Amino acid sequence: MSQPTKRRGSGFAIAASLALLLGSATAPAFAEGPALSEEAFERSKQLYFEQCAGCHGVLRKGATGKNLQPHWKKTAKDGTVTEGGTLQLGQERLEKIISWGTEGGMNNFSEILSEQEIKEMATYIMMEPPKPPEMSLAQMKKTRKIYVEEKDYPTEPLHGRNWENFFVVIERDAGKVAVIDGDTKEVLAHIPTGYAVHVIKASEHHKLEEPEQPGRFWYTMGRDGKMTKIDLWQTPDKMLVSEVTVAYDARDIAVSGDGKYIIGGAYWPPHFVIADAVTMEPVKVVSTRGVNIDGDYVEEARVAAVYTTPNEPTWLVAVKELGQMWQVDYSDIDNLRIDKIDSAKFLHDGFFDPTGRYFQIAANASNKMVVIDTKERKLEAMIDVAALPHPGPGANWNDPKCGPVAGTTHLGVGTVSVWTNDPAGRPDEAWKKCYEVETDGPGLFIRTHPNSKYVWADQTKHPDPEIQQAVQVISKETGEIVKTITITETEGNAAVHFEFNADGSEVWVSNWNMGDSLAPNGEIVVFDAETLEEKTRIKGLYAPTGKFNVHIRSNHVT
Amino acid sequence: MSQPTKRRGSGFAIAASLALLLGSATAPAFAEGPALSEEAFERSKQLYFEQCAGCHGVLRKGATGKNLQPHWKKTAKDGTVTEGGTLQLGQERLEKIISWGTEGGMNNFSEILSEQEIKEMATYIMMEPPKPPEMSLAQMKKTRKIYVEEKDYPTEPLHGRNWENFFVVIERDAGKVAVIDGDTKEVLAHIPTGYAVHVIKASEHHKLEEPEQPGRFWYTMGRDGKMTKIDLWQTPDKMLVSEVTVAYDARDIAVSGDGKYIIGGAYWPPHFVIADAVTMEPVKVVSTRGVNIDGDYVEEARVAAVYTTPNEPTWLVAVKELGQMWQVDYSDIDNLRIDKIDSAKFLHDGFFDPTGRYFQIAANASNKMVVIDTKERKLEAMIDVAALPHPGPGANWNDPKCGPVAGTTHLGVGTVSVWTNDPAGRPDEAWKKCYEVETDGPGLFIRTHPNSKYVWADQTKHPDPEIQQAVQVISKETGEIVKTITITETEGNAAVHFEFNADGSEVWVSNWNMGDSLAPNGEIVVFDAETLEEKTRIKGLYAPTGKFNVHIRSNHVT
Repeated sequence: MSQPTKRRGSGFAIAASLALLLGSATAPAFAEGPALSEEAFERSKQLYFEQCAGCHGVLRKGATGKNLQPHWKKTAKDGTVTEGGTLQLGQERLEKIISWGTEGGMNNFSEILSEQEIKEMATYIMMEPPKPPEMSLAQMKKTRKIYVEEKDYPTEPLHGRNWENFFVVIERDAGKVAVIDGDTKEVLAHIPTGYAVHVIKASEHHKLEEPEQPGRFWYTMGRDGKMTKIDLWQTPDKMLVSEVTVAYDARDIAVSGDGKYIIGGAYWPPHFVIADAVTMEPVKVVSTRGVNIDGDYVEEARVAAVYTTPNEPTWLVAVKELGQMWQVDYSDIDNLRIDKIDSAKFLHDGFFDPTGRYFQIAANASNKMVVIDTKERKLEAMIDVAALPHPGPGANWNDPKCGPVAGTTHLGVGTVSVWTNDPAGRPDEAWKKCYEVETDGPGLFIRTHPNSKYVWADQTKHPDPEIQQAVQVISKETGEIVKTITITETEGNAAVHFEFNADGSEVWVSNWNMGDSLAPNGEIVVFDAETLEEKTRIKGLYAPTGKFNVHIRSNHVT
Repeated sequence: MSQPTKRRGSGFAIAASLALLLGSATAPAFAEGPALSEEAFERSKQLYFEQCAGCHGVLRKGATGKNLQPHWKKTAKDGTVTEGGTLQLGQERLEKIISWGTEGGMNNFSEILSEQEIKEMATYIMMEPPKPPEMSLAQMKKTRKIYVEEKDYPTEPLHGRNWENFFVVIERDAGKVAVIDGDTKEVLAHIPTGYAVHVIKASEHHKLEEPEQPGRFWYTMGRDGKMTKIDLWQTPDKMLVSEVTVAYDARDIAVSGDGKYIIGGAYWPPHFVIADAVTMEPVKVVSTRGVNIDGDYVEEARVAAVYTTPNEPTWLVAVKELGQMWQVDYSDIDNLRIDKIDSAKFLHDGFFDPTGRYFQIAANASNKMVVIDTKERKLEAMIDVAALPHPGPGANWNDPKCGPVAGTTHLGVGTVSVWTNDPAGRPDEAWKKCYEVETDGPGLFIRTHPNSKYVWADQTKHPDPEIQQAVQVISKETGEIVKTITITETEGNAAVHFEFNADGSEVWVSNWNMGDSLAPNGEIVVFDAETLEEKTRIKGLYAPTGKFNVHIRSNHVT
């Protein structure tokens, strides 16, 4: 057992909201069947939330991962009934699955949890799942904290730096976000945020309704539902402006095109929250519990991701288990228009085409890319891809044969799938598979830049450290891998995520010290985007993962 | 105890869906506290569903009626905490409230339930409420029955009658709908429907998209969630065309403007269902569980009513507990646009203004009329009225002083409230209270016709039989009551609901034999709309309540 606690960040103060979430239920009494002491039940509940709920759901009905209810029964459309459940698998088999993982994409937890924890978890998931509490608008409002009043906001940048080439970097397990000067490579600040921030979004340039200073304000969403606001015009010690908690478990955030509102998307309670982007005061909560595309009610219908549409006064809300994209119009919050677009289940993460009209999102466990037409607010297409697509920020480029294309990596397999995405220019050929590239392993992220000849793909999901620690570079010209670059050979480290700098001359790759994530031993490795040679390493980072360049993100450079 | 069982129609076969609903939970075991035998628990559960759930909710969180949870705790906006619950009231006090009613509008149940039933009900509501099951689209599809295939639909009316002056009449407790020839006053058919049909709707003339034969097809919704389709061109013995069940507990139904879809609105599960209007095949379910206008999650967010908008390709769905009107666009079911219009809680029933643009709906326990602008799909106004407004089909007319007005009766008080409703003609004076009329007692329905000088109001909610059995006629000219008409003096009967015939020369009033509702002893009393004299009585009806004239309803004559 190497550092069993560090990897899950349990040394980290997991915010009051977690305590609230986890304090809500006590160990049920069983006449017979699996049982745990109250302490072990509480421990397992917390571990389950941190390690398992993301894929399997707090109610354990499954999503990216399998159903983990004690007993389930499923009737297929042809009437065939299948039964299963953790009780049927039993203690020993469950312990093995948790320890060693499965070929279907389940992680190996023997390095993450202790033997005792695995034993207890196997028992815990044979018991009835406790249901976490709701969170009202009134409760959310009470969590709001203001660190810098609006009247004290600077009217120009206070630090004289080229802030439009700043990188905002998630320091995942440390519950922080770093701000790095992209010109000088200096780490300016480590800003405290929610736990294990998943995504950071900025105010962006918009076709219809420009915000006041695109790219200036950045908003984070922690896994614990805490949203923070960051002002890049401030001196580094004052960049944290305000915060508010809108859920117990959350994943994503976005800013409205006019910069007036933010939206936070939550896993539990299953809802999204609209807040004032200036004051962070929550103003509206919308539940996403609903009926999925198969006609079944889903209580745990989670918001996997939220996006600002570059051309319309709307957000896209990916309601994972429903298989629906909700296009939410923020132009009149009191008379809220939502277009519920049916697509495929297990919607997860996506990116816009270069025009900003079409949104391309992975329906991961459906092995599809779903395309939404944000102008017509309807489904445009669905494209079959490989197992568990996961594009992250995605990549669009021009293929010599197929024309404009986009691509995705996959969680389930070492494949990059590439499809056409120019319905205006090539109406008959749009949304078709162009080609696939076999990489060395499954990954999380793909990325490119209009000025670059290359597309980068990581392999973070491969169990073999050597593959996990290397990224692969694909030629746009040939569609072939031209270089495999090992980012790190440190045990417990992995290579993950890419971001180009403003002019596309550099590619930044994270050397994520995930086995040692509470120490500032992580790095960003900077490459020359043309020669593919390493330029420098930015050190002193806590578990760096996602990176967001101000210019790139606020100008929709994809 | 006079006829304790008849009044609730317990002799009636309460449909398989009820058994499903009620069979879902067993009596919980209590270490201490209130307890019932399993049989008494099941009995009370069924009685609660039939008699109490409408106002108090199946989860007992209250709506029109009070919260009936064993224990509740409420935090006001100023932080004040109030606690209460049925456990605090205790067995004796609960029995008294159930037996004698309250001044707040709670019925007197000593005439409806036996002493033993009241005793058990008092205990039952101190126990935790059992949660009814969900209903999937697949389950609904299995309930569909076709009595007449579409290919066998007649191409012209088969009976040679003036079907556009037919009246379709709810025979409430008998689970039937009568069809009456409005010219000859003959009762043509008693068609079996769901239990205690709440509303019947027809295909209607529409501004944008005319259905094939407006007024020909009628759709009923039973309290048990069964929807039936009736074809008025058929011979009376074949008018029942098809049926499908879409909920365990439901209230309303509507047809799309193009006649292609129907929508059913349910109390439990809290959802609405869109079905093919020809085949009755359900195609889409949308949950209405959500976050109310105060920012609190509401599991039992019930659909109180659904309406076709005469000028737009939409339905209005009143989500009672959320305080939201959802304008649902049926022009693209797979990319379903819903505008969620915030207004006031406890939305119940409403009617359009004469232009068909504005919808006026009661938010009953909020003591408000809410006005929706269906063109802009937004809230237009809210008007304070008296306690518990309930307009039913409502009434619009011209007042000599205020101009175009509309009015409502109230469940809570003997008052007719009248307000202005012509924002195009009188922009500064629209949506303001014009006057109030004091009637003898609280009622359910108000009605008029453009050719009539009078507005009719019933008093069905008054506990005194003499008042309950009389209706009052108000002069449009003076705003004063010009006549009080006693419809019946039979014990256990009440006067309820009005409908004009096609040309407005007659007013039909129900003499509802609610104390004796399984016998065909109910009547419709027909009045001359000009002289206010009784013309005739149509006999042989089972518990007649709501009446729907083909011409009036399919042409939006209000």
